[in-house]
Amino acid sequence: MVITPEDKKKTAYHESGHAIIGSVLPGCDPVHKVTVIPRGRALGVTWAMPEQDRYSLYRDEMLAQIAMLFGGRAAEELFIGNISTGASNDFERATQIAREMVTRYGMSDVMGPMVYGDNEGEVFLGRSITTHKNLSDATLQKVDLEIRRIIDEQYALARRILEENRDKVEAMTKALLEWETIDADQIGDIMAGRPPRPPKPVSMPSQPPSDGGTRGGAEPSPSPAESA
Amino acid sequence: MVITPEDKKKTAYHESGHAIIGSVLPGCDPVHKVTVIPRGRALGVTWAMPEQDRYSLYRDEMLAQIAMLFGGRAAEELFIGNISTGASNDFERATQIAREMVTRYGMSDVMGPMVYGDNEGEVFLGRSITTHKNLSDATLQKVDLEIRRIIDEQYALARRILEENRDKVEAMTKALLEWETIDADQIGDIMAGRPPRPPKPVSMPSQPPSDGGTRGGAEPSPSPAESA
Amino acid sequence: MVITPEDKKKTAYHESGHAIIGSVLPGCDPVHKVTVIPRGRALGVTWAMPEQDRYSLYRDEMLAQIAMLFGGRAAEELFIGNISTGASNDFERATQIAREMVTRYGMSDVMGPMVYGDNEGEVFLGRSITTHKNLSDATLQKVDLEIRRIIDEQYALARRILEENRDKVEAMTKALLEWETIDADQIGDIMAGRPPRPPKPVSMPSQPPSDGGTRGGAEPSPSPAESA
Amino acid sequence: MVITPEDKKKTAYHESGHAIIGSVLPGCDPVHKVTVIPRGRALGVTWAMPEQDRYSLYRDEMLAQIAMLFGGRAAEELFIGNISTGASNDFERATQIAREMVTRYGMSDVMGPMVYGDNEGEVFLGRSITTHKNLSDATLQKVDLEIRRIIDEQYALARRILEENRDKVEAMTKALLEWETIDADQIGDIMAGRPPRPPKPVSMPSQPPSDGGTRGGAEPSPSPAESA
Amino acid sequence: MVITPEDKKKTAYHESGHAIIGSVLPGCDPVHKVTVIPRGRALGVTWAMPEQDRYSLYRDEMLAQIAMLFGGRAAEELFIGNISTGASNDFERATQIAREMVTRYGMSDVMGPMVYGDNEGEVFLGRSITTHKNLSDATLQKVDLEIRRIIDEQYALARRILEENRDKVEAMTKALLEWETIDADQIGDIMAGRPPRPPKPVSMPSQPPSDGGTRGGAEPSPSPAESA
Amino acid sequence: MVITPEDKKKTAYHESGHAIIGSVLPGCDPVHKVTVIPRGRALGVTWAMPEQDRYSLYRDEMLAQIAMLFGGRAAEELFIGNISTGASNDFERATQIAREMVTRYGMSDVMGPMVYGDNEGEVFLGRSITTHKNLSDATLQKVDLEIRRIIDEQYALARRILEENRDKVEAMTKALLEWETIDADQIGDIMAGRPPRPPKPVSMPSQPPSDGGTRGGAEPSPSPAESA
Repeated sequence: MVITPEDKKKTAYHESGHAIIGSVLPGCDPVHKVTVIPRGRALGVTWAMPEQDRYSLYRDEMLAQIAMLFGGRAAEELFIGNISTGASNDFERATQIAREMVTRYGMSDVMGPMVYGDNEGEVFLGRSITTHKNLSDATLQKVDLEIRRIIDEQYALARRILEENRDKVEAMTKALLEWETIDADQIGDIMAGRPPRPPKPVSMPSQPPSDGGTRGGAEPSPSPAESA
Repeated sequence: MVITPEDKKKTAYHESGHAIIGSVLPGCDPVHKVTVIPRGRALGVTWAMPEQDRYSLYRDEMLAQIAMLFGGRAAEELFIGNISTGASNDFERATQIAREMVTRYGMSDVMGPMVYGDNEGEVFLGRSITTHKNLSDATLQKVDLEIRRIIDEQYALARRILEENRDKVEAMTKALLEWETIDADQIGDIMAGRPPRPPKPVSMPSQPPSDGGTRGGAEPSPSPAESA
Repeated sequence: MVITPEDKKKTAYHESGHAIIGSVLPGCDPVHKVTVIPRGRALGVTWAMPEQDRYSLYRDEMLAQIAMLFGGRAAEELFIGNISTGASNDFERATQIAREMVTRYGMSDVMGPMVYGDNEGEVFLGRSITTHKNLSDATLQKVDLEIRRIIDEQYALARRILEENRDKVEAMTKALLEWETIDADQIGDIMAGRPPRPPKPVSMPSQPPSDGGTRGGAEPSPSPAESA
Repeated sequence: MVITPEDKKKTAYHESGHAIIGSVLPGCDPVHKVTVIPRGRALGVTWAMPEQDRYSLYRDEMLAQIAMLFGGRAAEELFIGNISTGASNDFERATQIAREMVTRYGMSDVMGPMVYGDNEGEVFLGRSITTHKNLSDATLQKVDLEIRRIIDEQYALARRILEENRDKVEAMTKALLEWETIDADQIGDIMAGRPPRPPKPVSMPSQPPSDGGTRGGAEPSPSPAESA
Repeated sequence: MVITPEDKKKTAYHESGHAIIGSVLPGCDPVHKVTVIPRGRALGVTWAMPEQDRYSLYRDEMLAQIAMLFGGRAAEELFIGNISTGASNDFERATQIAREMVTRYGMSDVMGPMVYGDNEGEVFLGRSITTHKNLSDATLQKVDLEIRRIIDEQYALARRILEENRDKVEAMTKALLEWETIDADQIGDIMAGRPPRPPKPVSMPSQPPSDGGTRGGAEPSPSPAESA
Repeated sequence: MVITPEDKKKTAYHESGHAIIGSVLPGCDPVHKVTVIPRGRALGVTWAMPEQDRYSLYRDEMLAQIAMLFGGRAAEELFIGNISTGASNDFERATQIAREMVTRYGMSDVMGPMVYGDNEGEVFLGRSITTHKNLSDATLQKVDLEIRRIIDEQYALARRILEENRDKVEAMTKALLEWETIDADQIGDIMAGRPPRPPKPVSMPSQPPSDGGTRGGAEPSPSPAESA
């Protein structure tokens, strides 16, 4: 399947959106690499890697993860003027993180320090049904509203960051269209407002980057934000 | 089973409806062929083929797909004055696209950039039940209203396009009743207001067109709109 | 099991009700034969056969089918003054047709051209549960009201037709009680206001009429309206 | 297990209640025999037998069946001044008949001539779930209210009949306590206000009465009203 | 596992609570024996035995059973000033009896003489789901309120009886702490205001009391009220 | 996986929070040992052991257990100023205890002495579904509010205790960071305001502490509060 220049451009903006948020927003894992070379079903990937393994995550970090996941769609909206299906995986992960903040981790003041429904990792059919029946519709609605509030706030934050960094989004998109892949050094140049250095000569990678990125949960994880 | 002239005429209007929308509305895939020769359970088929393979779809394109799916029923309503069961497959696909725009692709401002329910492609019984129980009735109702809004707007658009192109619908229907199948050249003639050229002499097809049309999702696809 | 004269009389009125609606109302399939000889669990059968095989049905035809199904109960109400359990199969089929008009065929202006729930023919347990959970209670209620509106309008129509054709109902009931089975010619006599001709001498049937009547869906079908 | 005189007395009133309603109310099957000799889990049985086999039931007959089923509890209430668990089987059958009148047989003007939920005899898991999900809560509530209205009206009718026939209830209870079983002749004496004739000398029954009484549905049936 | 003196004292008050209600309230089965010797998971047991086998229960008797089940918790509240988890089995049985009074036995005037949901003894998965779906939320709420009303009235009754018999509760608790088990004669002494006679010399029991106590349903039953 | 100093510090505050509540609040089991050495998935553990085996728990004790479980999160909030995912297991256990107080143990005045839903220990799929369907949404909502009230009150209590014992939290955190594990004697020193004695020389444990801590239910249990 051939990728059209238009798809490549849209992907470059999308990945730049992820990477700029990841570079600007405190609490995000540092961005190590961005590519618009397709991997599996994804047209591009942004790799963010925590500085050390993590046993637990703070609320600020989870909010930052959500904002970073929204960077792709926000970039499409701001720089392409149209929105595509390519962000659906980002939305799934962002929704999942927001839901767990509210229902498992007691991180919503409105819903308080308790658990709504079981730990998903321990679910089996019988338990699930009974458990979820325990919650009234009014409670489910409050949960819905809290998740939505988190989603909306982080999307607005992602948009604002990209609007304030329009020049950097354009510079990174340009670099991605020129070189297809950029690394931490080049990202650093762009974020510092310098022209990005040219890519290093390619050698065989001694250890390929993991593609099976985790789903943005609370586990310590390199969280590549893929987009199709 | 013999097809009555009346069924043939209804089918010709129905397929013309699909094809005219597909030819007029920006964002639709170009229409390559239209036929009123029954294929399987379908009395007619309209083939629309994207110009290149697609990795993702824009919101405009999905809305255009829905309008094109409604072309068949809208033509029945406007040119036959009665509506038939033959459009149910079109409705299923249109509803599915609208639902995914709202619940998976964050394309409704009202519902925001989040996912409602799981990715259908990864569904299994246990997960589904728990997942869907997470949404309150108030949220489900907002989703219903958004889907309905998209459906109604695109149906109105389909009707308006056909009303503004009555002469072309009539010309294409006439051509279909005369030749049963028309190709891109003939469609081009009709859309340009020219009398359609006669069909090319038939040869054995080197590669038959696919009949297993995809369901109008986000995958790049030739989307034949079948009607029974 | 012996059938009492009273049961026979009730059955004759019931089948006459079906047959008179089927003969009077445009859109109904022509009535070929009516009998009060029990078949399986049914005390009587009315055969209506489309003039040719049908690939799809128009809205008018579906509404007429519903009215014809209500002919039996309406006749009981008007001519016996009491109502029996014998019409339950008619109600199931009428409800099913009305439900599909609203939820699959986009034939209700209130509910619009979309699908509510999946195509029943493709249902399996897992899908069904998830699918139906997608609809809010408010939407289900609107569907309920639309189905009910169709049901009520067609029942009122069935009653009105029978009230305007009291003499024909009485004449057909009398013929059924005398001869047990009447055919298209005799039905024609009755509908023309003529005394029905006596039955033809019986010969062995070369091809027995199908008893496994279809359920009044959109498929072309001889639709015998059985009543117990 | 020994039956106490008190249990016997309560049973005699309970069965008399069934039998008096069955003898007085038009539409009930004639009462052939009443006994306070325990049969299986039942402390007493009232046999009512239709005069001939029935293919269908009229609304009046179903209402009468419900009232007769309530005769037992109403007699407890009026003549014992306390109510027992012994009527639960009667309530199940009465509720089932009322529910089917409303949801299957179109016998409620409020709910109209349509079916709510599938024919229970054809239920299997998958279908049931989907089917019942189709009804909104508002519709289910209207069904509940109609069933309740039928139940309340027939219970009030049963009470009224027993209050107007107090002497006959007392006479039949006395006969049952004296002879344990009474037959149609003795019932006839009591209903005519005559002292009941003494029982016939017992012979071996050539054909024992069926104990597996049907559940009061629409099928023609001898309907013994058992009470525990 | 060693039982602390405090646990023993709490158990003695708890069992005395059951036994005093059982001795004072008409409709309760006579109390034969009370013990604070642990049996299985129960720290104490109160045996109440009907005077003869029962085929059915009156409403008054079921209400009395509920009050007696609440005697244990009410005693904890009044005499210990704290409440423990030990009464959960009593609550399950009381709730079950109240639920069946309302939904199976027609013993609530508000809900009338009908059945809500199926006989639990005949439940299987498929039936249950469909059956319970038949009830609207408004009806379920009325059922909830009626059950709650019965529960609250009987708990208030249990408290009132214990408050009016404080001296007897104290006397029985003292006897249980001294002798661990008391029998009908000693209970009789306490209830008559006499000092309880000392226990009889122990011999090997010819027939041990049943431990598999039934769950307080409508079946005739010795109903030991166990508490943990 | 290496634990960062920051994770260790957060864990020390978290475990100190559990231990301080457990030492201050009457009704909590005495705290025997606290550690910030990871065990399995937990970064730290606080062991609390009842003084003797328990057959039942009082309401006060269950409330105290909930408050102690909240000690970890409350300490994060007060002493770190951020909240982490590490408290999710505490929330699950606290929610479970509060739910059982309300639905099984009759410990909420608002919900009264009855059972809502079945004893979870006896659940199987079929029963669960039917059981939970018995409760109306209004009742489920009242249950939700009562659980929430208990949760909120105990969390406020936990915060208040930690605020009033800031110096002890700091002292215990310091000791944990220095020695990683502290025992009852050292905890006693800290709670008495004394500098904690140095740890005893380590010997091989004759009997290792159980790690499979129970989930804070009503069973007598050493309840180690783990945090990840």
